[in-house]
Amino acid sequence: MSVNTFGHVLRVTTWGESHGPAIGVVIDGCPPGLALSEADIQPWLDKRRPGTSRYTTQRREDDAVRILSGTFEGRTTGTSISLLIENQDQRSKDYSQVAKAYRPGHADYTYEAKYGLRDWRGGGRSSARETAARVAAGAVARLVIPEVRIRAFLVELGGDSVDRSAFDLEQIAANPFHCPDAAAARRWEQAIDAARKAGSSLGAVVECRAEDVPPGWGAPVYAKLDGDLAGAMMSINAAKGVEIGDGFAAARLRGEENADAMRAGPTFLSNHAGGILGGISSGQPVVVRVAFKPASSILTPLQTIDRDGNETEIATRGRHDPCVGIRAVPVVEAMMALVLADHKLLHRAQCG
Amino acid sequence: MSVNTFGHVLRVTTWGESHGPAIGVVIDGCPPGLALSEADIQPWLDKRRPGTSRYTTQRREDDAVRILSGTFEGRTTGTSISLLIENQDQRSKDYSQVAKAYRPGHADYTYEAKYGLRDWRGGGRSSARETAARVAAGAVARLVIPEVRIRAFLVELGGDSVDRSAFDLEQIAANPFHCPDAAAARRWEQAIDAARKAGSSLGAVVECRAEDVPPGWGAPVYAKLDGDLAGAMMSINAAKGVEIGDGFAAARLRGEENADAMRAGPTFLSNHAGGILGGISSGQPVVVRVAFKPASSILTPLQTIDRDGNETEIATRGRHDPCVGIRAVPVVEAMMALVLADHKLLHRAQCG
Amino acid sequence: MSVNTFGHVLRVTTWGESHGPAIGVVIDGCPPGLALSEADIQPWLDKRRPGTSRYTTQRREDDAVRILSGTFEGRTTGTSISLLIENQDQRSKDYSQVAKAYRPGHADYTYEAKYGLRDWRGGGRSSARETAARVAAGAVARLVIPEVRIRAFLVELGGDSVDRSAFDLEQIAANPFHCPDAAAARRWEQAIDAARKAGSSLGAVVECRAEDVPPGWGAPVYAKLDGDLAGAMMSINAAKGVEIGDGFAAARLRGEENADAMRAGPTFLSNHAGGILGGISSGQPVVVRVAFKPASSILTPLQTIDRDGNETEIATRGRHDPCVGIRAVPVVEAMMALVLADHKLLHRAQCG
Amino acid sequence: MSVNTFGHVLRVTTWGESHGPAIGVVIDGCPPGLALSEADIQPWLDKRRPGTSRYTTQRREDDAVRILSGTFEGRTTGTSISLLIENQDQRSKDYSQVAKAYRPGHADYTYEAKYGLRDWRGGGRSSARETAARVAAGAVARLVIPEVRIRAFLVELGGDSVDRSAFDLEQIAANPFHCPDAAAARRWEQAIDAARKAGSSLGAVVECRAEDVPPGWGAPVYAKLDGDLAGAMMSINAAKGVEIGDGFAAARLRGEENADAMRAGPTFLSNHAGGILGGISSGQPVVVRVAFKPASSILTPLQTIDRDGNETEIATRGRHDPCVGIRAVPVVEAMMALVLADHKLLHRAQCG
Repeated sequence: MSVNTFGHVLRVTTWGESHGPAIGVVIDGCPPGLALSEADIQPWLDKRRPGTSRYTTQRREDDAVRILSGTFEGRTTGTSISLLIENQDQRSKDYSQVAKAYRPGHADYTYEAKYGLRDWRGGGRSSARETAARVAAGAVARLVIPEVRIRAFLVELGGDSVDRSAFDLEQIAANPFHCPDAAAARRWEQAIDAARKAGSSLGAVVECRAEDVPPGWGAPVYAKLDGDLAGAMMSINAAKGVEIGDGFAAARLRGEENADAMRAGPTFLSNHAGGILGGISSGQPVVVRVAFKPASSILTPLQTIDRDGNETEIATRGRHDPCVGIRAVPVVEAMMALVLADHKLLHRAQCG
Repeated sequence: MSVNTFGHVLRVTTWGESHGPAIGVVIDGCPPGLALSEADIQPWLDKRRPGTSRYTTQRREDDAVRILSGTFEGRTTGTSISLLIENQDQRSKDYSQVAKAYRPGHADYTYEAKYGLRDWRGGGRSSARETAARVAAGAVARLVIPEVRIRAFLVELGGDSVDRSAFDLEQIAANPFHCPDAAAARRWEQAIDAARKAGSSLGAVVECRAEDVPPGWGAPVYAKLDGDLAGAMMSINAAKGVEIGDGFAAARLRGEENADAMRAGPTFLSNHAGGILGGISSGQPVVVRVAFKPASSILTPLQTIDRDGNETEIATRGRHDPCVGIRAVPVVEAMMALVLADHKLLHRAQCG
Repeated sequence: MSVNTFGHVLRVTTWGESHGPAIGVVIDGCPPGLALSEADIQPWLDKRRPGTSRYTTQRREDDAVRILSGTFEGRTTGTSISLLIENQDQRSKDYSQVAKAYRPGHADYTYEAKYGLRDWRGGGRSSARETAARVAAGAVARLVIPEVRIRAFLVELGGDSVDRSAFDLEQIAANPFHCPDAAAARRWEQAIDAARKAGSSLGAVVECRAEDVPPGWGAPVYAKLDGDLAGAMMSINAAKGVEIGDGFAAARLRGEENADAMRAGPTFLSNHAGGILGGISSGQPVVVRVAFKPASSILTPLQTIDRDGNETEIATRGRHDPCVGIRAVPVVEAMMALVLADHKLLHRAQCG
Repeated sequence: MSVNTFGHVLRVTTWGESHGPAIGVVIDGCPPGLALSEADIQPWLDKRRPGTSRYTTQRREDDAVRILSGTFEGRTTGTSISLLIENQDQRSKDYSQVAKAYRPGHADYTYEAKYGLRDWRGGGRSSARETAARVAAGAVARLVIPEVRIRAFLVELGGDSVDRSAFDLEQIAANPFHCPDAAAARRWEQAIDAARKAGSSLGAVVECRAEDVPPGWGAPVYAKLDGDLAGAMMSINAAKGVEIGDGFAAARLRGEENADAMRAGPTFLSNHAGGILGGISSGQPVVVRVAFKPASSILTPLQTIDRDGNETEIATRGRHDPCVGIRAVPVVEAMMALVLADHKLLHRAQCG
């Protein structure tokens, strides 16, 4: 099975390195007849684009997407859709240090252990730049599931959580952190500024909710909707944990607290399960949380070794995200869209 | 792609319902020439078997495994290995209530929403009985990775965590909870007894460590070792959360704290990453934690609806696990073995 | 990808050796709610069963199928369907010669070259016994495509072709050769008798037609209906050639002869294409022909080498088919059913 | 499973339409460390390129390939390789007739039946232009199997076969037909000229031989080397038949004639099997033959219907191949390379 491909019947294959000429994605299995132009994709890429606030990297990437195949007269034809994003601003930065030594917390050492060589320019394939391709594919996936509304936001930054009682959907777009709590957003400004000043970085937790997912999507036992979501989310750069519904907190509840009672409708009296039972959607909102580690690209020097095994130190200069979790928000949404669209089609295959 | 199949090149396909004549698994892609008999599989099934202590269900299942294909003169031949476990003790229990109403927290409602019908005897395919097939397959996977040592244990039960400073590997086999902390194990006895008496159930967190995994297993970007582990673990019944390394706690660390510094060897000064960088093993122990919700099969009556949409109540009588996390320990180990063995072979395919 | 698995979304995984305790198949992705019992499968296995006439091997195999999972109250549940056929009549034949030397035309040498060992009892996994599992799976696939009528028959045996002008559907079941031409069937009786007497064997060509396949099944470019049929048919034991529609004869036609003109209806004035254009069904009958080599299990001694590389001779004693093409007829039908059912579901996934 | 993806562990995904801005392919699973530049790919594309002789279409396509990802400092990195070929000479031809009516023998009708719409410019995705992407991918596959020598050639054109006794490898590159028989090549010149003059087209049979394939590649039972080759070859545009070794002629041999006897070495006394036994390579040359129908794009008007179902006629004006089989030669070689390289890696996964 392809290691650069994701999905069962709606399948996306991504390619490209941080400092190559371009990155891209091929989307296979998309239903025909959907209205699709670059304008349907570009806004999501713009949302992910760096440099939109001073809390993300100031690298300049236009991320202008081009559709190279799979549409005709503005509609999908059912054939493979190729999307291409040219890389810009591949600043002739000095990578000599990265070429020689392994950056702790990065994939430098493991790529070389696996492949015997690595593209050390900007992380090559291990760069979060790959997630732009996911966001582009996710934009197409959204067209496959017009009935579903997906919304992701930060619920924790640097260990500081939002106040759930202050949750305000309107706030999410009103601050640079996709934060639904205005007060938390203000605290986070200071936290990010302080971390950057200290040459450090912060982690974050992203929550994503998909509403109006009909009951019946997903499948036992190795294509469970939650299993696929977990795999999808954990494959995002810097992700270290995934929860469905109450997640780890569910392990601290008692059986009668955790089971979501049902009443006529059908309606559920709670949603500890996060909208998934036995791997299949229940009709309640699908809720996922993803933990992102603090970026390892920091100014603070870290102990490491070089390719010859000698001990040395390395610090990452340049324009880096002080909190990669912020820019992960549209990526989490894209993976949610891809998993749901894939399962919609898979369900249709088996159950008509 | 098969929804009852797991893996890239070492692929397992499971089948069977709780109350059908048997369950089983077909293992495809296993290397030839490995010594394999039922005696290599049975001990792992015995470890998972219910009724081994008073803290698990008293249902009687012998879970005697038979190898029906794929071996010759005691060795694997490279062809598909079929394992079969007959179901026993399918007590002619009264399932009339379950047949009519949906048990909250179970897959009853979602299976019916998806398929239009369901096998309500013991949960059918959604029963944790399916995990016996995983354990059997995992036993074969272990033979593929003799270099790796896998050990899972409970680190939290009912919200009560082990004391990491009291961690004692020897303790794991010495108590019925796979608990590495003797004092915690004693507390858990009381917690379980109390929960059962109250007709309730408790959640748990299982940790699994794989040692001596060589660097280089895993692959960017949709077959990341951590992505595959997350998908594998979340597909286990009752799992609600998965963490790699520090997991959600990593989101509360600062960049310089979280990045595992390297020294000559190579050796790492810490393992916040849980042995995986960029989706590829680093040579450090691979560490995964899985949160299990409290079982929904409890004596306490819960509000629900019947198949006609009428409101009613349901309580689950019979012999059920007060904490499904306990019996999940060998299942988590099996999924770890399957993911690692699969990636060993996948790595060999590409990198020789 | 599994090497013992076939199909895109309706996937079958087979297992079992000729002389093991049983063979079987797991069918994944089958739509729920289909009426299914052993009685739907057994007749097709009986059709394939040896010993039904004196023109096939006299080995006795009851091939009684058991459904072990995937149904409830007589209907498919949407979960994996496990079918099991116990092996009988594993006559304690003397395989010492086969164990030591490679039978020309068999997989003995190649299995050993690949795996380093082989199950030499009756050919092990390379035995045509595996095709019983295909026939069982094909019976389930037929239920997925009730709108399609599939019929296979022999059009050539030992180089002697049927007379197309004498084609009579009724004849197919009236002779032991599935031959639509009564006169040819009579000639073939003598040919088979003579071949057997001479310790030899004969090849055959099977044609299979699927009628009422709706237009639109199949997909560019690597899941073309004809591509998948070719792969499916060539995977049958002893198959050496596959044609769609006019096949090799089409290479001798001129463009204007070969293109099937269309008239209102739509209707086609001919069917040189065999019902497939651009990899997608046209609504015309899907026509496939498969060439089967003469069986290599013959009484005539053949030159070969033993496992130590020494030159020797080997003859295959025992009860073997003088023409394996005859018993391939229901297998070809099964593969046709599997490919079509799979593509029906795949089409539904993408195009609704 | 992706319908635009081919392969088990070396997987290629193609995209692009005849008249879109570009076509391309993503190659996943390629071993790292292989020297790869555009110069390794371009010669094979040039071989397939139209307009190289007056016996192929005079359309101008430079088919200049660009590597967009997967290499670093001239070597493959193990990550996905993206190849792009820009479309040129998309002559603003008048497609109004093709837009309205279905060309007999083309995929016009079936694409529309499946998808509800079609890209009628030059056949869109159903154009043989897609095979350029296969040839590019095949060039990379060749680097994975340097031990193997692959050679394809025409053995029949317009029903006129080569004389096997006049077979001369040197001739293949010496005439525009890839014909190993000089006398046949001269006859074919006249046949092609006559067919073109008559507004017609001719079919052809391509044979491909792969030498020095080691024994052991391939796998039972649904990833047989011959099964995969059959699927691969039949997926090429205009292919209607595939044979392995003696193919259909084997069905006319007797058992003792067909079985390839073995002598010490090991060596085989004949190669009726075409180098494959039980789906696994034997070490003998792998031999495949593919029948190509005469092109349906001819000047002779053909009866058809328009999109509204009205009867009409259509003729294909413009620059078309009088015999598509000629330009299929490098495509057949590419598919052979892809199948073999894939199986080399798959074999390595399982058997080390």
